Amino acid sequence: MNSYEKLINRIESTNSMLCVGLDSSIERLPVGVTRDIYGLMDFNLSIIDATRNYAVAYKMNFAFYEQYGIEGMEALKKTFESIPDGIFTIADAKRGDIGNTSKAYAKMVFDYFHADSITVNPYMGADSVIPFLEYQDKFVFVLGLTSNHGSNDFQRLLMLNNSLYEKVFEVSSQWAGERHLGYVVGATHPDELAQLRGKYPDRIFLIPGVGAQGGDAEEVCAANANGPALVNASRAILYASSNEDYGGKAHVAAKNFSEKLKLT
Amino acid sequence: MNSYEKLINRIESTNSMLCVGLDSSIERLPVGVTRDIYGLMDFNLSIIDATRNYAVAYKMNFAFYEQYGIEGMEALKKTFESIPDGIFTIADAKRGDIGNTSKAYAKMVFDYFHADSITVNPYMGADSVIPFLEYQDKFVFVLGLTSNHGSNDFQRLLMLNNSLYEKVFEVSSQWAGERHLGYVVGATHPDELAQLRGKYPDRIFLIPGVGAQGGDAEEVCAANANGPALVNASRAILYASSNEDYGGKAHVAAKNFSEKLKLT
Repeated sequence: MNSYEKLINRIESTNSMLCVGLDSSIERLPVGVTRDIYGLMDFNLSIIDATRNYAVAYKMNFAFYEQYGIEGMEALKKTFESIPDGIFTIADAKRGDIGNTSKAYAKMVFDYFHADSITVNPYMGADSVIPFLEYQDKFVFVLGLTSNHGSNDFQRLLMLNNSLYEKVFEVSSQWAGERHLGYVVGATHPDELAQLRGKYPDRIFLIPGVGAQGGDAEEVCAANANGPALVNASRAILYASSNEDYGGKAHVAAKNFSEKLKLT
Repeated sequence: MNSYEKLINRIESTNSMLCVGLDSSIERLPVGVTRDIYGLMDFNLSIIDATRNYAVAYKMNFAFYEQYGIEGMEALKKTFESIPDGIFTIADAKRGDIGNTSKAYAKMVFDYFHADSITVNPYMGADSVIPFLEYQDKFVFVLGLTSNHGSNDFQRLLMLNNSLYEKVFEVSSQWAGERHLGYVVGATHPDELAQLRGKYPDRIFLIPGVGAQGGDAEEVCAANANGPALVNASRAILYASSNEDYGGKAHVAAKNFSEKLKLT
């Protein structure tokens, strides 16, 4: 079973689109958890345990682990190993470089971490993304229209006929079919999400920005119109409580998100 | 002394623009070097020793270390620690994400690895780059026009008045002054390099693509017109010989590049 099939199966079996983002950081660990890398690892295991029935996917944001250097990478490796079988994994690493360099990044995420998928930045063009696509049993999310305010700076700039992000969709959708290549589309842009879904009905969208970043789950569901998607929530689940009941509160938050993000 | 001053001093004391790219990989280690991460580390130390008199800067390409997982990160950390004082260091990591994530990447490169500078991808806009600029004693290279063929896919697309990469220069040059923000401009585009140098005389350009990627040192020097710059060579120095004389050959290659890349 390749990663695409794994994801589709999981979406069907949970009847939801919830992706849980493990953007854990030591500074924000709840009361009762040791404030070091071991505490962070315990916290991740508890969150995975509390949310595993609802998570279609787990998204590991590499920056949050890399900031702790080698110890952080060890925690990231263990976190990947702790994801239950059958749950899709996303290396949220936003990589992309010239061919031989992207090839090395692909080795990292797919051969070393055994991730199902990666987020990649399209700025450097086709030859920066193709080394990831060469892993034909894996999946690639190209940054389309990101959730942050800075998406206005370049992604929305007008080209001759359309915006840069539309051009990114148009060009990069030629690089691989929908079983290998999808897009990041921020929850903070529901109108554009609806338009993109209309144009690309079968592409998997990874939709971050619900919760702490201000995107609304119901709006996202309406805009996405039951297309294949993952809607990511990180902080709203991880830090549902800053006290010792964080596991129980994360469970409830994941359950609520899962219901809001169900397929109709 | 901040990183900008360190770089300018080093350019002056060497009278050159040579940046040595430590894109080392186990598969390409020369005869006589153990083909494992320890061999790679020994190789890096030998290359640094062989090139230290000529290197204005060393550029560590993160992918090449990350592909080996935790062991690779240990080698990367030791490589950073082995760069002699006074030589500028570049974390060639091409990062960029929403604000709180870029902040974590900045912690990694500046607080953990103590790099002088980082390469960042502008696609996600101002708020994805500003967390790096907040380290006011450090330096940021924004990807402008990259050296690879894929730079045609988006960077050269025409906007209403200019190309995307020109817009990236125009917009991002507002984010910080020339003591904090420079650009990556590929050696494979000498005409555009000359134009950009004319428009941005004081910005530091990091110019990859000389040697194995096909860029020509003399053409680059002419186009750059003695502006503040680093011209990177990686494979042409690292793998100047695939035999036991690799150190001596790397020394000669670095010396030759240094002379070709001198300021006139």
